[in-house]
Order: sequence, then structure tokens, then C-alpha cells
Amino acid sequence: MKTVVVQTNPAYAVCIEQGQLKKAGKWLADLVKPCVVALITDATVDAFYGDTVAVSLTDAGFQVERMAFAAGEKQKNLQTYGEILDFLSQRQLTRSDVVVALGGGVPGDVAGFAAATYLRGIRVAQIPTTLLAMVDSSVGGKTGVDLPAGKNLAGAFHQPIGVLCDPDVLQTLTPDVFTDGVAEMVKYGVLSDPVLFHTLATGVFDTELETLIARCVSIKAALCAEDTQDRGERQRLNLGHTLGHAIERLSDYAVPHGHAVAIGMAYAAHIAAGLGYCDVACVQAIERSLVQNGLPIRSPFSAEALAQAALSDKKRAGGTLTFVLPCAIGQCKLVPFPVEKLPELTELALKPLSV
Amino acid sequence: MKTVVVQTNPAYAVCIEQGQLKKAGKWLADLVKPCVVALITDATVDAFYGDTVAVSLTDAGFQVERMAFAAGEKQKNLQTYGEILDFLSQRQLTRSDVVVALGGGVPGDVAGFAAATYLRGIRVAQIPTTLLAMVDSSVGGKTGVDLPAGKNLAGAFHQPIGVLCDPDVLQTLTPDVFTDGVAEMVKYGVLSDPVLFHTLATGVFDTELETLIARCVSIKAALCAEDTQDRGERQRLNLGHTLGHAIERLSDYAVPHGHAVAIGMAYAAHIAAGLGYCDVACVQAIERSLVQNGLPIRSPFSAEALAQAALSDKKRAGGTLTFVLPCAIGQCKLVPFPVEKLPELTELALKPLSV
Repeated sequence: MKTVVVQTNPAYAVCIEQGQLKKAGKWLADLVKPCVVALITDATVDAFYGDTVAVSLTDAGFQVERMAFAAGEKQKNLQTYGEILDFLSQRQLTRSDVVVALGGGVPGDVAGFAAATYLRGIRVAQIPTTLLAMVDSSVGGKTGVDLPAGKNLAGAFHQPIGVLCDPDVLQTLTPDVFTDGVAEMVKYGVLSDPVLFHTLATGVFDTELETLIARCVSIKAALCAEDTQDRGERQRLNLGHTLGHAIERLSDYAVPHGHAVAIGMAYAAHIAAGLGYCDVACVQAIERSLVQNGLPIRSPFSAEALAQAALSDKKRAGGTLTFVLPCAIGQCKLVPFPVEKLPELTELALKPLSV
Repeated sequence: MKTVVVQTNPAYAVCIEQGQLKKAGKWLADLVKPCVVALITDATVDAFYGDTVAVSLTDAGFQVERMAFAAGEKQKNLQTYGEILDFLSQRQLTRSDVVVALGGGVPGDVAGFAAATYLRGIRVAQIPTTLLAMVDSSVGGKTGVDLPAGKNLAGAFHQPIGVLCDPDVLQTLTPDVFTDGVAEMVKYGVLSDPVLFHTLATGVFDTELETLIARCVSIKAALCAEDTQDRGERQRLNLGHTLGHAIERLSDYAVPHGHAVAIGMAYAAHIAAGLGYCDVACVQAIERSLVQNGLPIRSPFSAEALAQAALSDKKRAGGTLTFVLPCAIGQCKLVPFPVEKLPELTELALKPLSV
């Protein structure tokens, strides 16, 4: 088993090991006393893994209350959030009880947000079942829902009491959903790990997944522990996300998150090269790695549309928007721009490289 | 001007002075740099004071975006919360902007909750316009909404950057709404201030309101600063609230909060006397003070119904519910009970005193 400790206050552990899902009950019993557990997931994950986790929790002495909402990114909204809150209150969960969020980014974020705000906050444990959720969304305490105006516009910081990753469950993912997570893994490589980057650049997963996931989680854990509220260095994790979120919104969420981040990374690399932060070889290496992993690097949206959509990025502070720009593989920089520069930046993003 | 500093991290000031409402802009400008201010209130308060505050904020250099939702306790729900979030995102407020919650407990709680969760938290300033909001809900950082299953079941702790109280605005309150706040003031007296208690017991407000409000806020501030998350001593503030909330819910919120707390306090006093925590004279003094101030001390609900409704109290931790019981005027005790004892306790609450 690989264990990564996230040094927030209090600290918590991310446990990564094949075959752990059926031991979820024992894992949780090591973290909390017997109590009521609300097991929240979506219908797809519930069909695959709901029973396994519920049985394991029950066997470990927990009283399990199960809820599964319809699957899909569109369900990450205030209505699902309200339904979970109603469920928790109808089952009379108290402050000493626990929510277990089982699934991909959507159950993790929305059930996490419900836990963060039910009775002004009860404990949550995360059991991510997608690669993207394992390497990104389940760690760091960001929870939330989308609003009509944009992604993740409402939410809370609420660190989990523990995260359990069982790479075996990734076998039931469609290739597209698996690839979605690879985009975030490539991001960690570009951010701060050339070895990871070059391992992934082949597009062949011959290194053990456990090791790769643990490496990604370690990078995220280090950035989150020093900046839980996402006001400083943690913003590096937004590499590819500023234009990525714009693409998701412009496509009405038809482009999945990881794919949008891949395009956003390629765009960020173009902007960086255009402004002299990195050389053309760096952009090409990033694009090659993404393509090699079956990820897109272009969107059908105009520079103007991207600039307009990026305006409502939640990282914007007044008239300033901060981009994460690569300087080299394994090295990035936070660069603030006045929002008036956005059209110019998105023009650069779309401009072919002059080699 | 009376100023009470709440020593949370960061600390903030509650400013209490007649005629301050029309200086709200200057007050806020002393706290934050020029930015966009979302002025959130309900339709009733908006009609009385919306323009005054908006003009003052605009004159002080803020860009003001105004929103007023329908008035009433029933509006303190997830729908209003969602409407405020949509408003904030449509007006593209950023993390450096501010929400000003203007009004009684409902706008303060629901706009405060929206601020706590919009973009995972932006700053909020509170301008309470009811006595109850001034002495209680605007201070201490509790925000939230009601769920169908009960009051305040979803929310967040989110301290304001400042609280502005102008006692002049209390002149537009109906006597009933004013009285609602008096119940919470009597509570502070019973909790820890015999002088305040005896001042209020006359039912005549011949002491300056500014002074009385400041005294109440000081008591609350001291308890909140040492226990922001409401896990320990702060729970004393729940005197009268456990059965008070049950009464509100059983009456489908026809009984206003302060009135329900008054009844809850009388009930808590009966329980305390029944269990030997206080003498009969203490119960009589509390009841007399409440009656003298036009507040009720009995509800039409049975002991059984009260016990059942109290079960979903959000303070419950597993099988334990903690009551605040008076030992004497100015002295109370936190007493945990197993929930199985609830029917017995509510029987005691309704039992006539044996004098």
C-alpha cells in the first residue's frame, strides 16, 4: 500500500492499494468510531461498487444509509446538493456521523459540499473511483457545485478525514474517462516533475498505476498543505484550467474536464511561448504528450469567445486574472494579467507556432 | 458610538450608534478597498432602507449591485440561496468583492451563507435592522438556511468583516418583531448578567438601547471568540433554543424565533427546577421577565410532540443532546442527556411548578 499524508490541520492520509474497495469498512473503522454513514454516490458507480462498499461498511459496524443520484456532470448542481441535504436530514444524521462520497468528481464534489454545510459541517471520507478523482478532486478539500454561470462557482473548503483509492476500479472506466485523468497527471509532470512527464509522454502505462497515482497525489498534497484556501502557490494547480473551464462552459460541458484541461494546457503553453516564458520545444513536448495519450489540444472556439468566457473565472480578483504558464517541463510560473489583456492572450493561445 | 470587538481570527468590530445607517458607505470604505458590493436584502427592508444604504455606498466609491428577495422566514431556504448565488455570478462578483447583508435574521443568514460559499467564500459585512439580528444573528459568523426537516440545518461558519447597528432603524419594527429581540436579550441576562436581567425584567426600556445592545453583543462576542465552531462553551447561547426550535418547527414557523426561544427558556427553567439545578424562584423570575416583556411562556404542543421534534436538533451528537439549564439568574450549565430521556424532560418542561 502507498500512503500519502496531506499535512493540513488536521492531517489526513490518502491510501492507494489494489483491492482496497472491499476493505473500505475496516479502513473507515480505523478513522472513526461506529456511527451512521451516509454512502452517497451516483447511479452508475452504485451499480458497480455500491454493494461492495455498503457491505464492507456494515460488516465493520457502521449503520449505512445509501443514496444514489443520477450520473453525469449536469447533476453537479444545487438541486442534487439540496437532495443530499434532505437525505441527510431525513435520516437524521448528527454531527458525530460521517458522509462517504463514492465515485468520480461529481459525487466527491457535491457530496463533499453537502457534508461541508450540513449542520454547518460534518466529516466526509472520499472514495474516488475515477483516475481524475484519485489524482485530483478527492484530495485538497475543494468541494462544490456548478452554477448556470459557470463551473464550481459555489462550494466550500472541507478537508476529508481520509481518501481511499483502489486502482482496480479503474478497469471499469471507459477509455475516455480514463484519459480524462491522464490529462491531470500530465499536468503534474509539466508543473513540477520531468520524470513523471517523460514516463507519461510515451502514452504507455507500463509503470505501476499505484506508483503514478501516489506521485501525483504527493505533488498536490504538498501544494494544498501550504495553501489550503487556494490564495497563493496552490493556484499552480490551475495550469490549463483558466481556458479549460472556458472551453467546458462554451461546449455546455460536452467536453469533459480532463479533455478541456488538456486543451487549456496546450493553449497556456502557446501563450507562454508567445510571451517568451518558454521555448517552442517545450510547447511541442506538452502537445506531443497529450496527443500520445489520446487527448485533444485544440477547441472549435474563437479567441474572442474564449476571452469572454474566461472573464467569469472564479480566480479573477477584481480586474486581474492569474494564468499558470510553463517555463520548462517541470517548472511553471503564476502570471497575473489585467482582464483587458484577455483577448490578446487568447489570440496567442490559438496562434500557430513559428518554428 | 459603542464598539465591541469580536476576537476571532481575524478580529472584527460591531459598531453601534444611532444614525449610522446613512454613513454605511464610509464605514465600509474604512474596512475594504473600493470594489463591487452586492447589497442583499428583503423587499420589506429594501423599501425602508435600501436606498439610504445604496446611496451611501455609492457615494463612498463602491459599485453597488442590489438584490431584494421576498420577505419572510419561509424565504430562508435553498431556493433563495440559489437565487443569490445566481445574482452574484451573473453580476460577476470576484473574490475581492463584498456582500453586504442588510436586514433581519433571514437576509443576514442566507446572504451570509451565499457569501460563505460563492467562489468558496467571499467577504460579507452585516447591517442588521432588527433587534434580534443586532444582538444575536449578525454576530458570531453563523450563516445558513432552513431545510424541510428543520431550521438552520445547512450552513457555514463565516465571520463578517464588520457589523453595523443603527438603533434608529428599530423604530420601524412592529412591536412583535421588537419583542422577538427582547427574548434573546433576556437570554443573555439569564446566561451571565444579573444586572442586565433585572434591567430588562421591568419591561420598560428606560436604559439607552445602544448600551443594552452593546452589553448583549459583548456577551456573545466573548463566547464566540473562544469557540468559533460551536463545539463547547458557545453552546450556552442555545439556552431556550433546543425546545424553541422544536416549537418553531411544530408551529410550521408561525411562532417567531424569539417567541419560541422565550417559551424554550421557560421550559428549560422548569426542567432545571425539576432536576434540582435551580430553585422555583429562579423559574418564576425568568417567566415574570418574559411575560413583562410581552413574551409567551407556554406552547400548545404536547410533551410527546416536543420530544419528537427535538430529536432532529442539529446539536445532537449520536445519541446525546445537550441542554442549557439555568442554575440561577446569570449562571447556566451545559447538561448532556441521552436522547431516550427526551420524553421525560419535556414532561418536566410542561409540569406546573410545585410551589
